[in-house]
Amino acid sequence: MKAIILFGHGARDARWREPFDRLAGLWRSQHPQVLVELAFLEMMQPSLESAVASLAGDGATQITVVPVFFGQGGHLRNDFPLLLAACQEKFPQIALSATSAVGEDLAVLQAIIDFGARAL
Amino acid sequence: MKAIILFGHGARDARWREPFDRLAGLWRSQHPQVLVELAFLEMMQPSLESAVASLAGDGATQITVVPVFFGQGGHLRNDFPLLLAACQEKFPQIALSATSAVGEDLAVLQAIIDFGARAL
Repeated sequence: MKAIILFGHGARDARWREPFDRLAGLWRSQHPQVLVELAFLEMMQPSLESAVASLAGDGATQITVVPVFFGQGGHLRNDFPLLLAACQEKFPQIALSATSAVGEDLAVLQAIIDFGARAL
Repeated sequence: MKAIILFGHGARDARWREPFDRLAGLWRSQHPQVLVELAFLEMMQPSLESAVASLAGDGATQITVVPVFFGQGGHLRNDFPLLLAACQEKFPQIALSATSAVGEDLAVLQAIIDFGARAL
């Protein structure tokens, strides 16, 4: 069974996660056949490992991690591959992969441009 | 003259800013009549104040700041309003306003969902 993890940075303020909760809700309503979990790099739960464990427990066999980050700095270039490799080692029965950051996607950037243009 | 500032967090790794440079390029090609500058909260230049000064020097009279952040945590709820108020005080001739974070926009969230769905 396929699953997706929307992976964010995390923050101290609990309200920071609101758009992530909305993303998970949108995913569930539009792609109900694909399990979804949120996961955070730091300061928020669940961790990537906890999210993978949870999805594995729900029967996922193939998990795609989508980094919900704009830029690809140290967190995505250094920390994230190590974290992903550690998860893969811990859950060898899961086919674990990751996309580039959502900020690399032209359609995401275009939506930001359109948001700015509407605000003028 | 209208202008827009795309305001990001900033990061140590210079490559982190690549999507922001792409955003500015998209803006210039699609909305050439509205000046655009990037600005960063920390670890990258220019600061919000420098960007406002630069646009003011180019003749901008009305500047909209778009926070290119997903969540609204301490940075946007606490630091950003103070920073914006300080800029407004320093440049009283500019009509300075700000939108909500781009992560509050449904079309931006939908673009992220679609990116994830294409990756499966």
